[in-house]
Amino acid sequence: MHHCYLNGEVKPITESFIHISDLGLLRGYGLFDYFRTYNGKPFQWELYWKRFDNSAQKMGIENPIAKETAYEIVTQLIQKSGLKECAIRFVLTGGYSPDGMSTSKPNLLMISEDIHHVDALSYQSGMKVMTYEFVRDIPEVKSTDYKHLLILQPTIKKAGVSDVLFHKNGEVSELSRSNVFHFKNNVLVTPNENILNGITRQTVLELALGKFKIEERPVSLAEFLNADEVFTTSSTKRILHISKIDDKVIGNGKIGKNTKVLQDQINSMTQNW
Amino acid sequence: MHHCYLNGEVKPITESFIHISDLGLLRGYGLFDYFRTYNGKPFQWELYWKRFDNSAQKMGIENPIAKETAYEIVTQLIQKSGLKECAIRFVLTGGYSPDGMSTSKPNLLMISEDIHHVDALSYQSGMKVMTYEFVRDIPEVKSTDYKHLLILQPTIKKAGVSDVLFHKNGEVSELSRSNVFHFKNNVLVTPNENILNGITRQTVLELALGKFKIEERPVSLAEFLNADEVFTTSSTKRILHISKIDDKVIGNGKIGKNTKVLQDQINSMTQNW
Repeated sequence: MHHCYLNGEVKPITESFIHISDLGLLRGYGLFDYFRTYNGKPFQWELYWKRFDNSAQKMGIENPIAKETAYEIVTQLIQKSGLKECAIRFVLTGGYSPDGMSTSKPNLLMISEDIHHVDALSYQSGMKVMTYEFVRDIPEVKSTDYKHLLILQPTIKKAGVSDVLFHKNGEVSELSRSNVFHFKNNVLVTPNENILNGITRQTVLELALGKFKIEERPVSLAEFLNADEVFTTSSTKRILHISKIDDKVIGNGKIGKNTKVLQDQINSMTQNW
Repeated sequence: MHHCYLNGEVKPITESFIHISDLGLLRGYGLFDYFRTYNGKPFQWELYWKRFDNSAQKMGIENPIAKETAYEIVTQLIQKSGLKECAIRFVLTGGYSPDGMSTSKPNLLMISEDIHHVDALSYQSGMKVMTYEFVRDIPEVKSTDYKHLLILQPTIKKAGVSDVLFHKNGEVSELSRSNVFHFKNNVLVTPNENILNGITRQTVLELALGKFKIEERPVSLAEFLNADEVFTTSSTKRILHISKIDDKVIGNGKIGKNTKVLQDQINSMTQNW
Protein backbone atom coordinates (compact mmCIF):
# COMPACT_ATOMS: atom_id res chain seq x y z
CA MET A 1 0.00 0.00 0.00
CA HIS A 2 1.21 3.48 -0.80
CA HIS A 3 2.22 5.74 2.06
CA CYS A 4 2.96 9.40 2.61
CA TYR A 5 5.62 10.95 4.78
CA LEU A 6 4.63 14.38 6.10
CA ASN A 7 6.89 16.27 8.49
CA GLY A 8 8.20 13.21 10.30
CA GLU A 9 5.21 10.89 10.16
CA VAL A 10 4.56 8.09 7.68
CA LYS A 11 0.89 7.21 7.14
CA PRO A 12 -1.10 5.17 4.62
CA ILE A 13 -1.99 7.37 1.67
CA THR A 14 -5.70 7.17 2.48
CA GLU A 15 -5.02 8.76 5.87
CA SER A 16 -2.70 11.50 4.62
CA PHE A 17 -4.09 15.00 4.92
CA ILE A 18 -2.59 18.46 5.07
CA HIS A 19 -3.98 21.46 6.91
CA ILE A 20 -5.86 23.91 4.70
CA SER A 21 -3.57 26.78 5.69
CA ASP A 22 -0.75 25.30 3.60
CA LEU A 23 0.79 27.86 1.24
CA GLY A 24 1.16 25.28 -1.52
CA LEU A 25 -2.62 25.00 -1.56
CA LEU A 26 -3.50 28.65 -0.88
CA ARG A 27 -0.74 30.41 -2.82
CA GLY A 28 0.80 27.89 -5.21
CA TYR A 29 4.01 28.26 -3.22
CA GLY A 30 5.35 24.78 -3.69
CA LEU A 31 7.79 22.68 -5.63
CA PHE A 32 8.16 18.99 -6.22
CA ASP A 33 10.26 16.27 -7.71
CA TYR A 34 9.46 12.86 -9.03
CA PHE A 35 11.53 9.77 -9.69
CA ARG A 36 11.08 6.04 -10.01
CA THR A 37 12.83 2.83 -9.14
CA TYR A 38 14.43 0.27 -11.41
CA ASN A 39 15.14 -3.10 -9.83
CA GLY A 40 13.67 -1.60 -6.68
CA LYS A 41 16.37 1.09 -6.47
CA PRO A 42 15.73 4.81 -7.02
CA PHE A 43 17.06 5.73 -10.47
CA GLN A 44 19.65 8.53 -10.48
CA TRP A 45 18.90 9.40 -6.85
CA GLU A 46 21.90 11.73 -6.57
CA LEU A 47 20.77 13.84 -9.51
CA TYR A 48 17.14 14.02 -8.45
CA TRP A 49 18.11 15.01 -4.93
CA LYS A 50 20.40 17.73 -6.24
CA ARG A 51 17.64 19.13 -8.44
CA PHE A 52 15.10 19.04 -5.62
CA ASP A 53 17.48 20.84 -3.32
CA ASN A 54 18.21 23.38 -6.05
CA SER A 55 14.50 24.04 -6.70
CA ALA A 56 14.01 24.61 -2.97
CA GLN A 57 16.82 27.16 -2.90
CA LYS A 58 15.52 29.02 -5.94
CA MET A 59 11.99 29.12 -4.52
CA GLY A 60 13.31 30.44 -1.21
CA ILE A 61 11.97 27.45 0.72
CA GLU A 62 14.39 25.83 3.10
CA ASN A 63 14.86 22.12 2.42
CA PRO A 64 14.15 20.75 5.89
CA ILE A 65 15.70 17.31 5.49
CA ALA A 66 19.17 15.87 5.04
CA LYS A 67 19.88 13.76 1.98
CA GLU A 68 20.63 10.64 4.01
CA THR A 69 17.42 10.91 6.03
CA ALA A 70 15.44 11.49 2.85
CA TYR A 71 16.97 8.37 1.31
CA GLU A 72 16.05 6.30 4.37
CA ILE A 73 12.44 7.44 4.13
CA VAL A 74 12.37 6.76 0.40
CA THR A 75 13.62 3.24 1.07
CA GLN A 76 10.93 2.77 3.70
CA LEU A 77 8.20 4.04 1.33
CA ILE A 78 9.36 1.68 -1.41
CA GLN A 79 9.32 -1.27 0.99
CA LYS A 80 5.90 -0.37 2.38
CA SER A 81 4.46 -0.06 -1.14
CA GLY A 82 4.95 -3.81 -1.54
CA LEU A 83 5.58 -3.19 -5.24
CA LYS A 84 8.51 -4.34 -7.30
CA GLU A 85 8.81 -0.87 -8.83
CA CYS A 86 7.22 2.39 -7.76
CA ALA A 87 7.47 6.13 -8.13
CA ILE A 88 8.24 8.66 -5.43
CA ARG A 89 6.96 12.23 -5.35
CA PHE A 90 8.52 14.88 -3.11
CA VAL A 91 6.42 17.98 -2.46
CA LEU A 92 7.81 20.94 -0.54
CA THR A 93 5.66 23.96 0.30
CA GLY A 94 6.00 27.27 2.13
CA GLY A 95 4.30 25.66 5.15
CA TYR A 96 1.25 26.46 7.23
CA SER A 97 0.57 30.18 7.15
CA PRO A 98 -1.10 32.09 9.98
CA ASP A 99 -2.49 34.66 7.52
CA GLY A 100 -2.42 33.11 4.05
CA MET A 101 0.78 34.97 3.13
CA SER A 102 3.56 34.75 5.74
CA THR A 103 5.71 31.69 5.48
CA SER A 104 6.55 29.40 8.36
CA LYS A 105 8.18 26.00 8.75
CA PRO A 106 8.04 24.33 5.30
CA ASN A 107 5.88 21.25 4.77
CA LEU A 108 7.66 18.30 3.20
CA LEU A 109 5.72 15.41 1.74
CA MET A 110 7.18 12.24 0.26
CA ILE A 111 4.64 10.02 -1.42
CA SER A 112 4.94 6.62 -3.04
CA GLU A 113 2.86 6.15 -6.18
CA ASP A 114 2.16 3.69 -8.95
CA ILE A 115 4.31 4.21 -12.01
CA HIS A 116 2.26 5.35 -14.99
CA HIS A 117 3.86 3.21 -17.65
CA VAL A 118 3.86 4.26 -21.28
CA ASP A 119 2.19 1.39 -23.15
CA ALA A 120 4.04 -0.62 -25.80
CA LEU A 121 1.77 0.75 -28.53
CA SER A 122 2.84 4.34 -27.80
CA TYR A 123 6.48 3.34 -28.16
CA GLN A 124 5.56 1.96 -31.60
CA SER A 125 3.36 4.76 -32.84
CA GLY A 126 5.15 7.61 -31.10
CA MET A 127 3.62 10.69 -29.60
CA LYS A 128 1.56 13.37 -31.32
CA VAL A 129 1.91 16.87 -29.93
CA MET A 130 0.44 20.28 -30.64
CA THR A 131 2.44 23.49 -30.49
CA TYR A 132 1.46 26.07 -27.91
CA GLU A 133 2.93 29.50 -27.33
CA PHE A 134 3.98 29.61 -23.71
CA VAL A 135 6.96 29.63 -21.38
CA ARG A 136 6.59 28.39 -17.83
CA ASP A 137 7.22 30.90 -15.05
CA ILE A 138 10.72 30.25 -13.63
CA PRO A 139 11.10 27.18 -15.90
CA GLU A 140 14.35 26.01 -14.28
CA VAL A 141 12.47 25.32 -11.06
CA LYS A 142 10.19 22.30 -10.72
CA SER A 143 7.37 24.30 -9.14
CA THR A 144 3.89 22.85 -8.76
CA ASP A 145 2.55 25.36 -11.28
CA TYR A 146 0.80 23.25 -13.92
CA LYS A 147 -2.42 25.26 -14.09
CA HIS A 148 -1.81 26.21 -17.70
CA LEU A 149 -1.48 22.55 -18.72
CA LEU A 150 -4.59 21.58 -16.79
CA ILE A 151 -6.59 24.39 -18.36
CA LEU A 152 -5.40 23.13 -21.75
CA GLN A 153 -6.47 19.51 -21.17
CA PRO A 154 -9.80 19.76 -23.06
CA THR A 155 -8.00 21.41 -26.03
CA ILE A 156 -5.32 18.71 -26.01
CA LYS A 157 -7.96 15.99 -25.93
CA LYS A 158 -9.96 17.60 -28.72
CA ALA A 159 -6.85 17.87 -30.89
CA GLY A 160 -6.23 14.14 -30.46
CA VAL A 161 -2.69 14.70 -29.20
CA SER A 162 -1.08 13.71 -25.94
CA ASP A 163 0.90 16.82 -25.07
CA VAL A 164 1.85 20.38 -25.96
CA LEU A 165 5.17 21.59 -27.35
CA PHE A 166 5.90 24.95 -25.73
CA HIS A 167 7.47 27.66 -27.87
CA LYS A 168 7.73 31.39 -27.49
CA ASN A 169 9.23 34.14 -29.65
CA GLY A 170 10.11 31.50 -32.21
CA GLU A 171 12.04 29.31 -29.79
CA VAL A 172 11.03 25.87 -28.58
CA SER A 173 11.62 25.10 -24.92
CA GLU A 174 10.08 21.80 -23.83
CA LEU A 175 6.93 19.71 -23.59
CA SER A 176 4.64 20.24 -20.62
CA ARG A 177 6.41 17.65 -18.47
CA SER A 178 9.38 16.48 -20.52
CA ASN A 179 12.33 17.72 -22.54
CA VAL A 180 12.63 17.60 -26.28
CA PHE A 181 15.45 16.76 -28.71
CA HIS A 182 15.84 16.44 -32.45
CA PHE A 183 18.28 14.91 -34.87
CA LYS A 184 19.14 16.69 -38.12
CA ASN A 185 21.86 15.22 -40.31
CA ASN A 186 22.88 13.00 -37.39
CA VAL A 187 23.47 15.97 -35.09
CA LEU A 188 21.64 15.79 -31.75
CA VAL A 189 20.08 19.17 -30.88
CA THR A 190 18.20 20.22 -27.76
CA PRO A 191 17.08 23.59 -26.32
CA ASN A 192 19.06 24.89 -23.36
CA GLU A 193 16.92 27.89 -22.38
CA ASN A 194 13.62 28.16 -20.53
CA ILE A 195 13.70 24.46 -19.72
CA LEU A 196 13.60 22.26 -16.70
CA ASN A 197 16.90 20.50 -16.22
CA GLY A 198 15.53 17.02 -16.85
CA ILE A 199 17.44 14.17 -15.27
CA THR A 200 16.61 11.91 -18.23
CA ARG A 201 17.68 14.76 -20.55
CA GLN A 202 21.02 14.88 -18.74
CA THR A 203 21.33 11.08 -18.81
CA VAL A 204 20.63 10.98 -22.55
CA LEU A 205 23.17 13.71 -23.25
CA GLU A 206 25.76 11.66 -21.37
CA LEU A 207 24.84 8.51 -23.29
CA ALA A 208 25.12 10.41 -26.59
CA LEU A 209 28.56 11.77 -25.78
CA GLY A 210 31.15 10.54 -28.25
CA LYS A 211 28.46 8.93 -30.42
CA PHE A 212 26.81 11.99 -31.89
CA LYS A 213 27.68 15.61 -32.39
CA ILE A 214 25.64 17.44 -29.72
CA GLU A 215 24.28 20.97 -29.79
CA GLU A 216 22.66 22.47 -26.69
CA ARG A 217 21.35 25.84 -27.82
CA PRO A 218 18.23 27.86 -28.62
CA VAL A 219 16.24 25.93 -31.23
CA SER A 220 13.52 27.33 -33.48
CA LEU A 221 10.16 25.71 -34.09
CA ALA A 222 11.00 25.53 -37.79
CA GLU A 223 14.03 23.39 -36.98
CA PHE A 224 11.86 20.95 -35.06
CA LEU A 225 9.33 20.77 -37.88
CA ASN A 226 12.09 20.07 -40.39
CA ALA A 227 14.04 17.64 -38.24
CA ASP A 228 14.82 14.06 -39.28
CA GLU A 229 13.91 12.69 -35.85
CA VAL A 230 12.26 14.22 -32.78
CA PHE A 231 11.97 12.65 -29.36
CA THR A 232 11.10 13.51 -25.80
CA THR A 233 12.73 12.44 -22.55
CA SER A 234 11.21 12.06 -19.10
CA SER A 235 11.45 9.93 -15.99
CA THR A 236 8.46 7.83 -16.96
CA LYS A 237 8.84 7.84 -20.77
CA ARG A 238 12.63 7.54 -20.87
CA ILE A 239 12.89 8.11 -24.66
CA LEU A 240 9.71 8.31 -26.70
CA HIS A 241 9.78 9.48 -30.31
CA ILE A 242 7.47 12.24 -31.48
CA SER A 243 5.75 11.22 -34.68
CA LYS A 244 3.75 14.35 -35.39
CA ILE A 245 3.90 18.05 -34.44
CA ASP A 246 0.59 19.72 -35.32
CA ASP A 247 -0.01 18.54 -38.93
CA LYS A 248 3.63 17.79 -39.69
CA VAL A 249 4.70 14.14 -39.67
CA ILE A 250 8.30 13.82 -38.45
CA GLY A 251 10.43 11.59 -40.69
CA ASN A 252 8.17 8.71 -41.66
CA GLY A 253 6.38 8.82 -38.30
CA LYS A 254 8.36 5.85 -36.98
CA ILE A 255 11.20 6.00 -34.49
CA GLY A 256 14.38 7.24 -36.19
CA LYS A 257 17.58 5.18 -36.29
CA ASN A 258 19.60 7.52 -34.08
CA THR A 259 16.76 7.84 -31.57
CA LYS A 260 16.61 4.04 -31.51
CA VAL A 261 20.33 3.85 -30.64
CA LEU A 262 19.81 6.13 -27.63
CA GLN A 263 16.57 4.43 -26.62
CA ASP A 264 18.29 1.01 -26.59
CA GLN A 265 21.06 2.48 -24.48
CA ILE A 266 18.86 4.05 -21.84
CA ASN A 267 16.65 0.96 -21.69
CA SER A 268 19.72 -1.16 -21.15
CA MET A 269 20.94 1.27 -18.48
CA THR A 270 17.67 1.14 -16.55
CA GLN A 271 17.33 -2.63 -16.92
CA ASN A 272 20.72 -3.00 -15.32
CA TRP A 273 20.24 -0.31 -12.66
CA MET B 1 -13.81 30.66 16.21
CA HIS B 2 -13.03 30.46 12.51
CA HIS B 3 -14.43 27.56 10.53
CA CYS B 4 -13.90 25.98 7.16
CA TYR B 5 -16.49 24.55 4.82
CA LEU B 6 -15.12 21.75 2.66
CA ASN B 7 -17.38 19.87 0.24
CA GLY B 8 -20.48 20.00 2.42
CA GLU B 9 -18.98 19.90 5.91
CA VAL B 10 -18.25 22.81 8.24
CA LYS B 11 -15.48 22.23 10.77
CA PRO B 12 -13.40 24.38 13.13
CA ILE B 13 -10.36 25.68 11.27
CA THR B 14 -8.01 23.66 13.48
CA GLU B 15 -9.68 20.45 12.31
CA SER B 16 -9.81 21.34 8.61
CA PHE B 17 -7.58 19.21 6.44
CA ILE B 18 -7.51 18.33 2.77
CA HIS B 19 -6.25 15.09 1.26
CA ILE B 20 -2.75 15.32 -0.17
CA SER B 21 -3.94 14.23 -3.64
CA ASP B 22 -5.58 17.64 -4.15
CA LEU B 23 -4.58 19.23 -7.47
CA GLY B 24 -4.41 22.67 -5.92
CA LEU B 25 -1.60 21.39 -3.74
CA LEU B 26 0.12 19.08 -6.24
CA ARG B 27 -0.33 21.09 -9.45
CA GLY B 28 -1.25 24.64 -8.49
CA TYR B 29 -4.59 24.02 -10.15
CA GLY B 30 -6.71 26.27 -7.99
CA LEU B 31 -8.36 29.64 -7.78
CA PHE B 32 -9.73 31.70 -4.94
CA ASP B 33 -11.61 34.79 -3.97
CA TYR B 34 -11.59 36.90 -0.88
CA PHE B 35 -14.01 39.44 0.55
CA ARG B 36 -14.90 40.97 3.88
CA THR B 37 -17.91 42.14 5.82
CA TYR B 38 -18.93 45.64 6.79
CA ASN B 39 -21.56 45.87 9.51
CA GLY B 40 -21.48 42.08 9.49
CA LYS B 41 -22.65 41.87 5.87
CA PRO B 42 -20.48 40.68 2.97
CA PHE B 43 -19.38 43.73 0.99
CA GLN B 44 -20.31 43.62 -2.70
CA TRP B 45 -21.27 39.94 -2.52
CA GLU B 46 -22.86 39.95 -5.97
CA LEU B 47 -19.66 41.21 -7.63
CA TYR B 48 -17.35 38.86 -5.73
CA TRP B 49 -19.55 35.89 -6.52
CA LYS B 50 -19.61 36.80 -10.22
CA ARG B 51 -15.82 37.09 -10.30
CA PHE B 52 -15.35 33.80 -8.47
CA ASP B 53 -17.69 32.05 -10.88
CA ASN B 54 -15.89 33.65 -13.81
CA SER B 55 -12.45 32.56 -12.54
CA ALA B 56 -13.79 29.01 -12.22
CA GLN B 57 -15.03 29.02 -15.81
CA LYS B 58 -11.75 30.38 -17.15
CA MET B 59 -9.73 27.82 -15.19
CA GLY B 60 -11.96 25.01 -16.48
CA ILE B 61 -13.05 24.03 -12.97
CA GLU B 62 -16.76 23.55 -12.49
CA ASN B 63 -18.17 25.73 -9.73
CA PRO B 64 -19.92 23.06 -7.66
CA ILE B 65 -22.20 25.31 -5.64
CA ALA B 66 -25.20 27.56 -6.29
CA LYS B 67 -24.95 31.22 -5.34
CA GLU B 68 -27.76 30.99 -2.80
CA THR B 69 -26.24 27.97 -1.06
CA ALA B 70 -22.85 29.68 -0.99
CA TYR B 71 -24.40 32.74 0.60
CA GLU B 72 -26.06 30.62 3.29
CA ILE B 73 -22.73 29.01 4.16
CA VAL B 74 -20.99 32.40 4.19
CA THR B 75 -23.64 33.67 6.62
CA GLN B 76 -23.10 30.61 8.80
CA LEU B 77 -19.31 31.09 8.79
CA ILE B 78 -19.67 34.76 9.75
CA GLN B 79 -21.99 33.84 12.63
CA LYS B 80 -19.74 31.03 13.83
CA SER B 81 -16.69 33.35 13.80
CA GLY B 82 -18.27 35.31 16.64
CA LEU B 83 -16.62 38.42 15.21
CA LYS B 84 -18.25 41.70 14.34
CA GLU B 85 -16.37 41.77 11.05
CA CYS B 86 -14.47 39.01 9.30
CA ALA B 87 -13.06 37.99 5.95
CA ILE B 88 -14.11 35.03 3.84
CA ARG B 89 -11.82 33.11 1.50
CA PHE B 90 -13.16 30.80 -1.20
CA VAL B 91 -10.71 28.26 -2.63
CA LEU B 92 -11.67 26.03 -5.55
CA THR B 93 -9.30 23.36 -6.84
CA GLY B 94 -9.25 20.66 -9.53
CA GLY B 95 -10.11 18.09 -6.84
CA TYR B 96 -8.55 14.89 -5.62
CA SER B 97 -6.60 13.27 -8.42
CA PRO B 98 -6.04 9.51 -8.72
CA ASP B 99 -2.74 10.07 -10.55
CA GLY B 100 -1.58 13.63 -9.81
CA MET B 101 -2.86 14.89 -13.15
CA SER B 102 -6.42 13.83 -14.01
CA THR B 103 -9.10 16.03 -12.58
CA SER B 104 -12.09 14.79 -10.65
CA LYS B 105 -14.83 16.40 -8.57
CA PRO B 106 -13.57 19.89 -7.62
CA ASN B 107 -12.81 20.71 -4.00
CA LEU B 108 -14.48 23.83 -2.67
CA LEU B 109 -13.33 25.43 0.56
CA MET B 110 -14.87 28.47 2.23
CA ILE B 111 -12.90 29.78 5.16
CA SER B 112 -13.56 32.57 7.63
CA GLU B 113 -10.52 34.60 8.62
CA ASP B 114 -9.47 37.61 10.63
CA ILE B 115 -9.35 40.82 8.60
CA HIS B 116 -5.81 42.12 8.24
CA HIS B 117 -6.48 45.80 8.80
CA VAL B 118 -4.20 48.44 7.37
CA ASP B 119 -3.05 50.49 10.33
CA ALA B 120 -3.84 54.20 10.68
CA LEU B 121 -0.19 55.11 10.28
CA SER B 122 -0.04 53.53 6.83
CA TYR B 123 -3.02 55.60 5.73
CA GLN B 124 -1.06 58.67 6.82
CA SER B 125 2.33 57.80 5.41
CA GLY B 126 1.13 55.92 2.35
CA MET B 127 2.68 52.89 0.76
CA LYS B 128 6.15 52.54 -0.68
CA VAL B 129 6.50 50.14 -3.60
CA MET B 130 9.27 48.88 -5.82
CA THR B 131 8.87 48.26 -9.53
CA TYR B 132 9.27 44.72 -10.80
CA GLU B 133 9.14 43.47 -14.37
CA PHE B 134 6.50 40.77 -14.42
CA VAL B 135 3.02 39.93 -15.62
CA ARG B 136 1.01 37.26 -13.83
CA ASP B 137 0.04 34.18 -15.86
CA ILE B 138 -3.63 34.57 -16.89
CA PRO B 139 -3.91 37.80 -14.86
CA GLU B 140 -7.68 38.14 -15.29
CA VAL B 141 -8.15 34.96 -13.25
CA LYS B 142 -7.72 34.98 -9.48
CA SER B 143 -5.62 31.83 -9.47
CA THR B 144 -3.70 30.73 -6.39
CA ASP B 145 -0.41 31.41 -8.19
CA TYR B 146 1.51 33.79 -5.93
CA LYS B 147 4.82 31.93 -5.98
CA HIS B 148 6.57 34.85 -7.65
CA LEU B 149 5.48 37.22 -4.89
CA LEU B 150 6.51 34.81 -2.18
CA ILE B 151 9.92 34.29 -3.76
CA LEU B 152 10.28 38.10 -3.84
CA GLN B 153 9.44 38.58 -0.14
CA PRO B 154 13.07 38.85 1.07
CA THR B 155 13.82 41.38 -1.70
CA ILE B 156 10.73 43.42 -0.81
CA LYS B 157 11.69 43.40 2.85
CA LYS B 158 15.27 44.37 2.09
CA ALA B 159 14.11 47.28 -0.07
CA GLY B 160 12.01 48.58 2.82
CA VAL B 161 8.84 48.62 0.72
CA SER B 162 5.55 46.87 1.23
CA ASP B 163 4.74 45.68 -2.27
CA VAL B 164 5.82 45.42 -5.91
CA LEU B 165 4.44 47.36 -8.85
CA PHE B 166 4.31 44.99 -11.81
CA HIS B 167 5.22 46.33 -15.22
CA LYS B 168 6.23 44.68 -18.46
CA ASN B 169 7.22 46.02 -21.88
CA GLY B 170 6.88 49.52 -20.49
CA GLU B 171 3.32 49.04 -19.27
CA VAL B 172 2.18 48.97 -15.67
CA SER B 173 -0.47 46.39 -14.76
CA GLU B 174 -1.09 46.17 -11.01
CA LEU B 175 0.43 45.58 -7.59
CA SER B 176 0.86 42.01 -6.40
CA ARG B 177 -2.59 41.89 -4.79
CA SER B 178 -4.25 45.16 -5.66
CA ASN B 179 -5.01 47.51 -8.55
CA VAL B 180 -3.37 50.82 -9.18
CA PHE B 181 -4.60 54.27 -10.29
CA HIS B 182 -3.08 57.66 -10.81
CA PHE B 183 -4.29 61.23 -11.14
CA LYS B 184 -2.61 63.59 -13.59
CA ASN B 185 -4.13 67.03 -14.10
CA ASN B 186 -7.26 65.81 -12.30
CA VAL B 187 -7.78 62.95 -14.75
CA LEU B 188 -8.16 59.53 -13.15
CA VAL B 189 -6.14 56.90 -15.05
CA THR B 190 -5.90 53.15 -14.49
CA PRO B 191 -4.51 50.24 -16.51
CA ASN B 192 -7.06 47.97 -18.19
CA GLU B 193 -4.79 45.20 -19.46
CA ASN B 194 -3.10 42.27 -17.69
CA ILE B 195 -4.98 43.05 -14.51
CA LEU B 196 -7.29 41.31 -12.13
CA ASN B 197 -10.74 42.83 -12.25
CA GLY B 198 -10.66 44.19 -8.72
CA ILE B 199 -14.03 44.67 -7.06
CA THR B 200 -12.72 47.72 -5.20
CA ARG B 201 -11.28 48.98 -8.51
CA GLN B 202 -14.73 48.66 -10.04
CA THR B 203 -16.37 50.31 -7.02
CA VAL B 204 -13.94 53.23 -7.13
CA LEU B 205 -14.51 53.73 -10.86
CA GLU B 206 -18.24 53.91 -10.19
CA LEU B 207 -17.72 56.39 -7.35
CA ALA B 208 -15.52 58.55 -9.60
CA LEU B 209 -18.08 58.64 -12.40
CA GLY B 210 -19.27 62.18 -13.07
CA LYS B 211 -16.66 63.62 -10.67
CA PHE B 212 -13.49 63.05 -12.64
CA LYS B 213 -12.55 62.39 -16.22
CA ILE B 214 -11.68 58.69 -16.28
CA GLU B 215 -9.25 56.86 -18.57
CA GLU B 216 -9.03 53.07 -18.51
CA ARG B 217 -6.17 52.24 -20.86
CA PRO B 218 -2.59 50.95 -21.06
CA VAL B 219 -0.44 53.16 -18.82
CA SER B 220 3.33 53.49 -18.94
CA LEU B 221 5.61 53.35 -15.94
CA ALA B 222 6.82 56.87 -16.79
CA GLU B 223 3.26 58.15 -16.43
CA PHE B 224 3.01 56.66 -12.96
CA LEU B 225 6.35 58.12 -11.94
CA ASN B 226 5.27 61.55 -13.14
CA ALA B 227 1.74 61.42 -11.78
CA ASP B 228 0.33 63.97 -9.32
CA GLU B 229 -1.25 61.27 -7.17
CA VAL B 230 -1.00 57.46 -7.14
CA PHE B 231 -3.12 55.08 -5.13
CA THR B 232 -3.97 51.42 -4.87
CA THR B 233 -7.31 49.70 -4.29
CA SER B 234 -8.05 46.36 -2.66
CA SER B 235 -10.65 44.65 -0.51
CA THR B 236 -8.64 45.15 2.66
CA LYS B 237 -6.98 48.50 1.84
CA ARG B 238 -9.95 50.14 0.13
CA ILE B 239 -7.97 53.20 -1.05
CA LEU B 240 -4.40 53.67 0.09
CA HIS B 241 -2.14 56.27 -1.48
CA ILE B 242 1.27 55.33 -2.80
CA SER B 243 3.87 57.77 -1.57
CA LYS B 244 6.95 56.39 -3.28
CA ILE B 245 7.73 54.25 -6.31
CA ASP B 246 11.36 53.09 -6.15
CA ASP B 247 13.23 56.35 -5.40
CA LYS B 248 10.56 58.66 -6.77
CA VAL B 249 8.34 60.44 -4.24
CA ILE B 250 4.82 60.91 -5.64
CA GLY B 251 3.52 64.47 -5.20
CA ASN B 252 4.66 65.53 -1.74
CA GLY B 253 4.34 61.99 -0.40
CA LYS B 254 1.01 62.75 1.27
CA ILE B 255 -2.40 61.68 0.06
CA GLY B 256 -3.51 63.83 -2.89
CA LYS B 257 -6.68 65.91 -2.81
CA ASN B 258 -8.49 63.89 -5.48
CA THR B 259 -7.50 60.60 -3.90
CA LYS B 260 -8.85 61.96 -0.60
CA VAL B 261 -12.23 62.67 -2.24
CA LEU B 262 -12.51 59.07 -3.43
CA GLN B 263 -11.18 57.67 -0.16
CA ASP B 264 -13.80 59.58 1.82
CA GLN B 265 -16.47 58.29 -0.51
CA ILE B 266 -15.55 54.62 -0.29
CA ASN B 267 -15.09 54.86 3.48
CA SER B 268 -18.53 56.38 3.75
CA MET B 269 -19.94 53.66 1.50
CA THR B 270 -18.45 50.84 3.60
CA GLN B 271 -19.41 52.49 6.91
CA ASN B 272 -23.00 52.55 5.72
CA TRP B 273 -22.99 49.10 4.09
